[in-house]
Amino acid sequence: MGLKLYGLPVSTCTGRVVAVIEELGLEYELVPVDLSAGEHKRPAYMEKNPFGQIPALKDGDLVLFESRVITRYLVRKYGKESGLLREESPADGIAVDQWIEVETQHFNKPISSLFYQHLLLPLFFGGAADEKVVAAEVEKLEKVLDVYEAKLSKTKFLAGDFYSLADLHHLPYGHYLITTTPHGSLIHSRPHVKAWWDAVTSRPASKKVIAGLTLSL
Amino acid sequence: MGLKLYGLPVSTCTGRVVAVIEELGLEYELVPVDLSAGEHKRPAYMEKNPFGQIPALKDGDLVLFESRVITRYLVRKYGKESGLLREESPADGIAVDQWIEVETQHFNKPISSLFYQHLLLPLFFGGAADEKVVAAEVEKLEKVLDVYEAKLSKTKFLAGDFYSLADLHHLPYGHYLITTTPHGSLIHSRPHVKAWWDAVTSRPASKKVIAGLTLSL
Ligand SMILES: N[C@@H](CCC(=O)N[C@@H](CS)C(=O)NCC(=O)O)C(=O)O
Ligand SMILES: N[C@@H](CCC(=O)N[C@@H](CS)C(=O)NCC(=O)O)C(=O)O
Repeated sequence: MGLKLYGLPVSTCTGRVVAVIEELGLEYELVPVDLSAGEHKRPAYMEKNPFGQIPALKDGDLVLFESRVITRYLVRKYGKESGLLREESPADGIAVDQWIEVETQHFNKPISSLFYQHLLLPLFFGGAADEKVVAAEVEKLEKVLDVYEAKLSKTKFLAGDFYSLADLHHLPYGHYLITTTPHGSLIHSRPHVKAWWDAVTSRPASKKVIAGLTLSL
Repeated sequence: MGLKLYGLPVSTCTGRVVAVIEELGLEYELVPVDLSAGEHKRPAYMEKNPFGQIPALKDGDLVLFESRVITRYLVRKYGKESGLLREESPADGIAVDQWIEVETQHFNKPISSLFYQHLLLPLFFGGAADEKVVAAEVEKLEKVLDVYEAKLSKTKFLAGDFYSLADLHHLPYGHYLITTTPHGSLIHSRPHVKAWWDAVTSRPASKKVIAGLTLSL
């Protein structure tokens, strides 16, 4: 049977899952979903994700959606020894959860908004970035990355001195921030954030994901 | 030493944590944080949560923030047998994670926005609800609750026929939707959502949380 991942390599949320699959060296089939044709809002797909978004994963009879749930599932089921979750160590495990949630609640929102303003809006909707929105999101992201800089001056990665899902989840949007918006210096100007980013992106699995993140103007 | 929870009983995110503490029957000290005086943005508090928000939890030397991380921690450390997470069963555990993430990504956003428009804005900022924003959020929430209705017609609770963190996390905002906005019928008009909501709110632990959720116009 094997793993079936419904999504697109250019999509950030699909990329998060592909990163785990590549870290663990799993075999999988990527089943493209034609967003421009609205395939994600048709019953055949919404059976897999009732919210009509990519990605979704099928593993035998099990169907899951939400990228951050799929990554957790894959590590628990196929890659405990990868150390990406460390749930067998309560202290490490909760540190990973702490920073997974920081990505979800604090990092993802301003970056996805900037990505929309600078790339999706001009690319797909013929619009131009709203400079007021951009300024507000940049200000938020600066504060968030100041917290990261402080944390990463103490440990090499977010949850400790080990690479984990907490770091991995940043890959797609971090990459698009640098390649599709004028705000990459938010990462590069903070020395510990920059060193962390270099470590995250130089992993062979990350490079494969990045090769798929090709959206640009 | 014991547990110290920094927050306020009227706050939704604090309520999420109090619900778990009450479910597990844990002793704790609630340390109020004076938001109106800006206490949450001062160094003494930001040492606990660098993002300057409530709640934060101190358990001996460990400090955690983000309500959904704290709840997970408390169940793992003090209440595995409560069945609120079921991580010992891979299938149940991932179902709980699936619906925890749905609350985070789909339920929380439109409701917190409606709560802001109908309550926080008039109460603290002397403003009035923006009817356009309200209409858009109601439309989103309707779609989300249609998904819940379909799911809850198959199982009694979100992750299965057992009460879990996935249900519990809905308590504070679900309660405020009903008590502080004109949109409670979104819950009451859907029979399976209503039955689920009655089951969630009639638990003794939930009643204690609700007693603290007293914000109103
Ligand atoms: N929280 C979801 C977000 C999924 C999401 O926003 N997917 C986008 C592509 S990256 C999508 O399907 N957009 C189309 C739509 O929302 O209609 C996850 O992490 O999986
Ligand atoms: N995602 C956070 C949200 C925390 C949050 O928004 N807390 C609010 C009170 S419910 C707060 O501290 N607001 C003040 C502020 O953000 O400045 C959690 O779940 O703990």
